[in-house]
Amino acid sequence: MNKTLLYNCRALLMDEAGTLLDNAYVAVEGETISSVGTERPQGTFDQEIDCKGNVLMPGLVNAHTHVPMTFLRGYGGGCDLQTWLHQWIFPAEAKLDDRAVAACAGLGLAEMIASGVTCIADMYMFTGTIAQQVMEAGISANLSCGGVYFGDPADFSPATCNDCYNQEKLTDLWHGAGNGQILVDASIHGEYTSNQPLWQWMADYAQKKGLGMHVHVSETSFEHEACKSRHGGKTPIQVLDQFGVWENRAIAAHCVWTTEEDWAIMAKKGISCLHNPVSNLKLGSGVAPVPAMLKAGVNVAIGTDGVSSNNSHDMFEEMKFAATIHTGVSHDPLALLPMDVLRMATVSGAKALGRKAGVIAPGYMADLILVDFDHLGLFPCHSVKDNLIYSANGRDVVMNMARGKVIYQNGTFLTLDLEKIKAEVKGYAMKKVFG
Amino acid sequence: MNKTLLYNCRALLMDEAGTLLDNAYVAVEGETISSVGTERPQGTFDQEIDCKGNVLMPGLVNAHTHVPMTFLRGYGGGCDLQTWLHQWIFPAEAKLDDRAVAACAGLGLAEMIASGVTCIADMYMFTGTIAQQVMEAGISANLSCGGVYFGDPADFSPATCNDCYNQEKLTDLWHGAGNGQILVDASIHGEYTSNQPLWQWMADYAQKKGLGMHVHVSETSFEHEACKSRHGGKTPIQVLDQFGVWENRAIAAHCVWTTEEDWAIMAKKGISCLHNPVSNLKLGSGVAPVPAMLKAGVNVAIGTDGVSSNNSHDMFEEMKFAATIHTGVSHDPLALLPMDVLRMATVSGAKALGRKAGVIAPGYMADLILVDFDHLGLFPCHSVKDNLIYSANGRDVVMNMARGKVIYQNGTFLTLDLEKIKAEVKGYAMKKVFG
Repeated sequence: MNKTLLYNCRALLMDEAGTLLDNAYVAVEGETISSVGTERPQGTFDQEIDCKGNVLMPGLVNAHTHVPMTFLRGYGGGCDLQTWLHQWIFPAEAKLDDRAVAACAGLGLAEMIASGVTCIADMYMFTGTIAQQVMEAGISANLSCGGVYFGDPADFSPATCNDCYNQEKLTDLWHGAGNGQILVDASIHGEYTSNQPLWQWMADYAQKKGLGMHVHVSETSFEHEACKSRHGGKTPIQVLDQFGVWENRAIAAHCVWTTEEDWAIMAKKGISCLHNPVSNLKLGSGVAPVPAMLKAGVNVAIGTDGVSSNNSHDMFEEMKFAATIHTGVSHDPLALLPMDVLRMATVSGAKALGRKAGVIAPGYMADLILVDFDHLGLFPCHSVKDNLIYSANGRDVVMNMARGKVIYQNGTFLTLDLEKIKAEVKGYAMKKVFG
Repeated sequence: MNKTLLYNCRALLMDEAGTLLDNAYVAVEGETISSVGTERPQGTFDQEIDCKGNVLMPGLVNAHTHVPMTFLRGYGGGCDLQTWLHQWIFPAEAKLDDRAVAACAGLGLAEMIASGVTCIADMYMFTGTIAQQVMEAGISANLSCGGVYFGDPADFSPATCNDCYNQEKLTDLWHGAGNGQILVDASIHGEYTSNQPLWQWMADYAQKKGLGMHVHVSETSFEHEACKSRHGGKTPIQVLDQFGVWENRAIAAHCVWTTEEDWAIMAKKGISCLHNPVSNLKLGSGVAPVPAMLKAGVNVAIGTDGVSSNNSHDMFEEMKFAATIHTGVSHDPLALLPMDVLRMATVSGAKALGRKAGVIAPGYMADLILVDFDHLGLFPCHSVKDNLIYSANGRDVVMNMARGKVIYQNGTFLTLDLEKIKAEVKGYAMKKVFG
């Protein structure tokens, strides 16, 4: 097994105590961290990386994205949500094929890798193609295909339901691939894009296969209120709860309009909120009640959402939004602190996705990133945590190690061919979609 | 006069029409733009810059900062506002001297130059020292010393008022220096840190000398409400209006709690709002009603505020916050569009500061920046304006030309010695302040 030693770093362990270990040595064996300390560990290493006094931290978990949508960066801006979706986004997406999705997913993965992401939860079509790109890129991913069912509930049959077939195929081909690099989650796109028999089937399927569950929940006020009128005052969290959707590990994206009753269910059932502050602000959805959810015992992770509504995959930027938006709207500068947000983007994200990652400790996945604290924008440094949250951005990441392997270093991708990906997006995908 | 030609660029002119000129040539003579077009202008040039297809736009105007506070990046986080100010910030600032301020100002200026700022409005102590640093750095600055007066109004005398003396000295030494590179503004720190005789003196002085006026206004609810109780229900804008404070060009920082009546006064008197979204969010001050102010006819510019409460000077990040926070809290995705925010950070900022800048057109100040649109995070590009606002950040700036002179290119400072500045901050300033 390949052995790597990272030395001369300030390691933010993301343990319970929030330890910052100066002059740290972190040893990696295969895919996992084998030792952490301030003395050089015994033995020899295949590779030694001088971190030059920079900050080593767990790789970031982008807990909700739609990675191929990277090709829609800045497309269709300046119109209202419904026009944007129906006249711009959906028609463009309808023209995608496997080859285009492969290129667009590669692009999104490259952007995330360069900015410090080592693990994602994705929901999109052509999911098998995305899985192939993730395997090549080297990060970990929870993949889901966002099941929808618009038919009459009475007509539903698993044998003819396209998204049941997609889910089964995805699970069979990819769940657990690459020693767990790919995990397949069961998935319901949202309460408003499906109905009872699909919910029931998906809940049963997740339990039968031991899968997690990924759902869009209460993103907009319209969606949330429409659900309540359809279902006798019950919210999406409450409605889906009746069908057993939340019985396994579950992740609920957005949760902007969730209620105190919802949080109680989320805390009890272990449903993680995937907070997407930038997308929620940009689309006018609102501000998710994150401090209240945390107080209620809900596990909260962070995602960028798709680049089409962000328009970036930069998790450092997302962390700054998360760290400031709640203090701003609550008028309480202590509503969320840097360490709260760092947890959301690392250890809580890993927990949401069912992975032993997000902490620098022996036995944890060797997902590690190095941040250039010599950059002018991070100088001086009175607090590593404050500088990471408020001053750093994705451009400051100088190394990304995912699953024990360095996949990005000093601007160079070691698993992806960026120029080839960009040429394929420009050449094939753009022509396929936009003619 | 030195003549420079910038060619092979996509020029976002920031004219009324929002023109994006492909394959543009922009010629500069001395400090100003001499021609803009798609054909190579006649004549020879001392310097020609190949922009490699990247986006050229007016330099950003950081309309409210406290530049030496850069040395307090991340200092004193995690406590409430009063504790932060009184136990951390004020005691640290009290130990500054001219040499420390010179170093810290140099650091802040370097950060801004590298991220595309060509013009600032600053309010701080040791203002003459800041002026020297600005002259050396090469950008333009409106400088003010933030007059305070805590004494009994009956005891006020211009002859013994320290901040009247500072104001007069600053004006006499620096107003108009460097062919207008430095403009001195008159200044009242805030309604809550002074009283009537200082307001009257400062208003009269500004009129006598033809100076602008820089004031902190209604940043927090507490400040705003306390003013109302002290002054029979009148807000800071209204109270200061009674003393003629707003008669000349005037800039009001924050304006978070300003009212409809305030906006009417601001629109009528030409008081610009200096919007600082990140600082207002981070400190828990709230969200300034920017869309409503724009609708009321108020000129709105953008600032980062001091790095101590941001904790960055990145105006691209500030623009993304401005572009998303108002759509988010109003639940209207069209509340502010990219072009609105680009205007705030360029032409409206220049207007607020009384400068013919912020537009790429003949006769305007040659404040120009180049943004690397080849960066992964800005690819693909369906909309230059959307990518600038939502996808770019300060790290993507590859050239900064201020007042006709290239002062930063591809990571290299041409007027400042960054290593020397960092060494001086670390060596002298930090020891002076923190022992």
